[in-house]
Amino acid sequence: MLVLRNASLSRNVGVARQHDSIAVAAGLRSLGQDAVSRRTSAGQLASRTQTRLFTKSIESSKGDRERVVVLGSGWAGYTLARDLDPKKYQVVVVSPRSYFVFTPLLASTSTGTLEFRTALEPVRSRRTKVEFFQGWADSVDFVTQKLTVEEAVENPWQAMALTGDGKEDQNSDQSQQEKKVKAKKGKLFEMSYDKLVVAVGCYSQTFGTPGVKENAYFLKDVGDARKIRNRMLSCFETASLPTTSEAMKKQLLNFAVVGGGPTGIEFSAELHDLISEDMARLYPELMQYYKITVYDVAEKVLSMFDDKLAKFAIERFTREGIDVKTSHHVKSLRRGAPKQLKEADDGDEIKDDASCYTLDLKEEGEVGVGMVVWSTGLMMNPFISKSLARPYTIPISSAAVEQKSDAKSWNISTHPRSGGIMTNDRLRIIMQPSAGTKEENNGRAIINNVYALGDCAIMENSAYPATAQVANQKARWLAKQLNRNTIDANAFTYKDLGIMAYVGNWNAIMQSSGGDVSGRVAWLIWRGAYLAKSVSWRNRILIPVYWFVNWVFGRDISRF
Amino acid sequence: MLVLRNASLSRNVGVARQHDSIAVAAGLRSLGQDAVSRRTSAGQLASRTQTRLFTKSIESSKGDRERVVVLGSGWAGYTLARDLDPKKYQVVVVSPRSYFVFTPLLASTSTGTLEFRTALEPVRSRRTKVEFFQGWADSVDFVTQKLTVEEAVENPWQAMALTGDGKEDQNSDQSQQEKKVKAKKGKLFEMSYDKLVVAVGCYSQTFGTPGVKENAYFLKDVGDARKIRNRMLSCFETASLPTTSEAMKKQLLNFAVVGGGPTGIEFSAELHDLISEDMARLYPELMQYYKITVYDVAEKVLSMFDDKLAKFAIERFTREGIDVKTSHHVKSLRRGAPKQLKEADDGDEIKDDASCYTLDLKEEGEVGVGMVVWSTGLMMNPFISKSLARPYTIPISSAAVEQKSDAKSWNISTHPRSGGIMTNDRLRIIMQPSAGTKEENNGRAIINNVYALGDCAIMENSAYPATAQVANQKARWLAKQLNRNTIDANAFTYKDLGIMAYVGNWNAIMQSSGGDVSGRVAWLIWRGAYLAKSVSWRNRILIPVYWFVNWVFGRDISRF
Repeated sequence: MLVLRNASLSRNVGVARQHDSIAVAAGLRSLGQDAVSRRTSAGQLASRTQTRLFTKSIESSKGDRERVVVLGSGWAGYTLARDLDPKKYQVVVVSPRSYFVFTPLLASTSTGTLEFRTALEPVRSRRTKVEFFQGWADSVDFVTQKLTVEEAVENPWQAMALTGDGKEDQNSDQSQQEKKVKAKKGKLFEMSYDKLVVAVGCYSQTFGTPGVKENAYFLKDVGDARKIRNRMLSCFETASLPTTSEAMKKQLLNFAVVGGGPTGIEFSAELHDLISEDMARLYPELMQYYKITVYDVAEKVLSMFDDKLAKFAIERFTREGIDVKTSHHVKSLRRGAPKQLKEADDGDEIKDDASCYTLDLKEEGEVGVGMVVWSTGLMMNPFISKSLARPYTIPISSAAVEQKSDAKSWNISTHPRSGGIMTNDRLRIIMQPSAGTKEENNGRAIINNVYALGDCAIMENSAYPATAQVANQKARWLAKQLNRNTIDANAFTYKDLGIMAYVGNWNAIMQSSGGDVSGRVAWLIWRGAYLAKSVSWRNRILIPVYWFVNWVFGRDISRF
Repeated sequence: MLVLRNASLSRNVGVARQHDSIAVAAGLRSLGQDAVSRRTSAGQLASRTQTRLFTKSIESSKGDRERVVVLGSGWAGYTLARDLDPKKYQVVVVSPRSYFVFTPLLASTSTGTLEFRTALEPVRSRRTKVEFFQGWADSVDFVTQKLTVEEAVENPWQAMALTGDGKEDQNSDQSQQEKKVKAKKGKLFEMSYDKLVVAVGCYSQTFGTPGVKENAYFLKDVGDARKIRNRMLSCFETASLPTTSEAMKKQLLNFAVVGGGPTGIEFSAELHDLISEDMARLYPELMQYYKITVYDVAEKVLSMFDDKLAKFAIERFTREGIDVKTSHHVKSLRRGAPKQLKEADDGDEIKDDASCYTLDLKEEGEVGVGMVVWSTGLMMNPFISKSLARPYTIPISSAAVEQKSDAKSWNISTHPRSGGIMTNDRLRIIMQPSAGTKEENNGRAIINNVYALGDCAIMENSAYPATAQVANQKARWLAKQLNRNTIDANAFTYKDLGIMAYVGNWNAIMQSSGGDVSGRVAWLIWRGAYLAKSVSWRNRILIPVYWFVNWVFGRDISRF
């Protein structure tokens, strides 16, 4: 029942330093307590006061219910929080985002086919009884069953994809705001839990490609979608200026998508629809210049689909003039025009360097582009490797030892390649003796009241993909088991309901156990499915209204 | 037919310096040419090249039509551009904003009663044949009938109220972006006109009150509305954090509105609706803390309404708990908590200073507030006093001298108090001998092909207010006269169609020649009128959908 306070100390301190950008004096406290006390010594809010304030505001409404703290408001966290029985559990969501994003519609919002808010559901709602605190989990202690939360209400990147090695390390567009916020790092407060659900999701993976973090456009959150929409419309507006040369028009209207998965393909398709249906009427003189290209390192795109469906998609793209370039490697991305263009420049005609980007490809060299949308790969949330990585002495009350061991120091078990949290088939976190110790592979324990699901978690002996569908099914399953107290009698299994992708011009592809469908019928199913799956009636009304209005009148091109 | 190239030279140079933040060598060129040649010497695009590019892109489609260049896309400029006959005129709108804002609905969008885009109409549209360049008019030459435009596609404050002494001088939130953009000041290009319409509008007036420009929230454009909505929701979210003390909750949820005109009153009413209808369900524990106060320097608010109607509005406000404080003077506004609160602070409980603002009032001293919405007064657009202020030698071909004079130097006539452009009853710009010369009050000429309307213009011998209704009527009248070539036979007269204001809780007030109406019936008329007046069918469909959806399900509180 004791927390191991000394094991792997040097590693731990390194972690803390990275996470907090503060040099930490080596001490004997656990990481969580350490983080709190550091603030205290810096003259900030004392942990005692925090707890008292927290108690006042929420303790009274708890009653005799168990408190389930859910970290994250994505497909896993949001679904679970909504499905848990509020009579039985006090559900508290902690997330830096005040809303859930219905990600399949994000590409549509980025091109104006739908309004941004139709893809959002606020965590706070009239119709649910979920408590919400906008913040990041800073540290967790499985022994005392407490977590420390850093508030993040004014968090300027709350609507953006995270790419860095931690939330402090964002791309350059955000760097100014970042500095402001760093100066006033959020206050910390403590919260206890009876059950904890870790569903913090993943960051976007840039594979360390130089300039991508700073210059690419991601498509993970609604703020990203907004940036893409504004940038794409800006490119057209700039290209239509009399001061923009022919050569620069071609760069500005050259749109590159890196990543041939469903997100990249759907975005390309939606972008092509927008250009061919709306921009063609608004900027007819620019139609000769635009170009959309999808790049992927792999030999084929849409690899999760059958060959026949992937081929259908590529044929559609070819017909619409979208290039798909497989086996292509991005070397770097930077602001400014490509070298060959600058060299050909007579000094007069090239617009200000900064108005376009240059994508450097191993296979093609430098290519001038107006925008690169980066939608490839996930990076494990640093919360897992940093805040959750602290060692424990087993047994602790909530841990069930399944394989005995002499190990003194235990850690959560993570996937060797992705770094995701390993869970058992009840979605409970697995612990094992700390890496590097001689008991490393001997011993296994389960933390019974801590669950992990969504993209940050991997269920052992499974090969479920990191998709919204898996996250959603895990969340529904877990909520059901917790509501009925049946978790010990059941194990989670995933039922593949099929996959779909929109491929443009009212065509989609769909692959399921019922068979493959492509074309207009698949598109109808695609729209129907997402409409039916939309969480709120509000959006179920607004989405078809926007489909109708934008079909009749065209998409809105106002930028603000 | 000669431009006076030497008069008031020292004044001119001063202007150029202020406007361009670049020291200008005194020369004999006119201001417009000077500005262009300065860039050329800095190695930028040459005026000749610009003209050629411009020619290529737009000259060919002109045909034998006259080109009407409209500066601005507000009530005056946008309406005129839409109403002009495209068979007769090539209409070119130059505006830093790519859209028109239907201002009466802006308050509704700032509180989420309507989605932002329902108050916008893009200038480029499938249904109009208006050419558009996103930029600022930099200088105009009435002799050569050319203007220089500075492109502004990536202009970061395009959706914000302008408050400064020029577009370079924005508030602190924008200062980071500002620096970026200053470094890459927009390229210039030249354009010729047959007719010019100046409808550049006004800036927001802060009366030099310290801190207002930097810390207040304005409500003039859609970006302002977006900032207000995010800030207001942030205040509630921050107030609900366990780290926020009671004292700070009260500050954060204290909303101040400065200015008791229709905009300030409607915003207060909409804010109260939002809080009482939605926030009360989402943050019930915070309802004890919130407060809305309207401050005005005058002895009464809504002074343009009859006493009876104004009284009705105030009684409604009182019943809803909104304070109206007349004869109150704002001394300053700053970031941080008021002194008395800091002194009472035990060092633990006050949240980070920067999370609230302090409004200093002559009558009350320091008041802690979560947000100050500033909606009082207009400031003349510096374009008038700077770019349009250059002197001319009359006669020039487009000027009709109405009162002869020996004056060598002539300027546009501006209103002595507001600085607005004086026009005759055909909305044509009046010129008079330059101020300070001995002919100052002897002489009058009319520039026949240059018109001014909207908030930046004042028609002589009239007392029409600076309202959307006047701007709209002038624009419709002018378009009609120009389409029919009847302007010499007619004079503009304004027909007051009445004024309305929403006062909250489904009540409005309406004053017109048909009589006064207040209450629920006025509210129905208010909604009906704005729905009918909405420009596009797109918005005529979306607006009632949002009214319905938000009435049934509540307003959306997602922040991004």
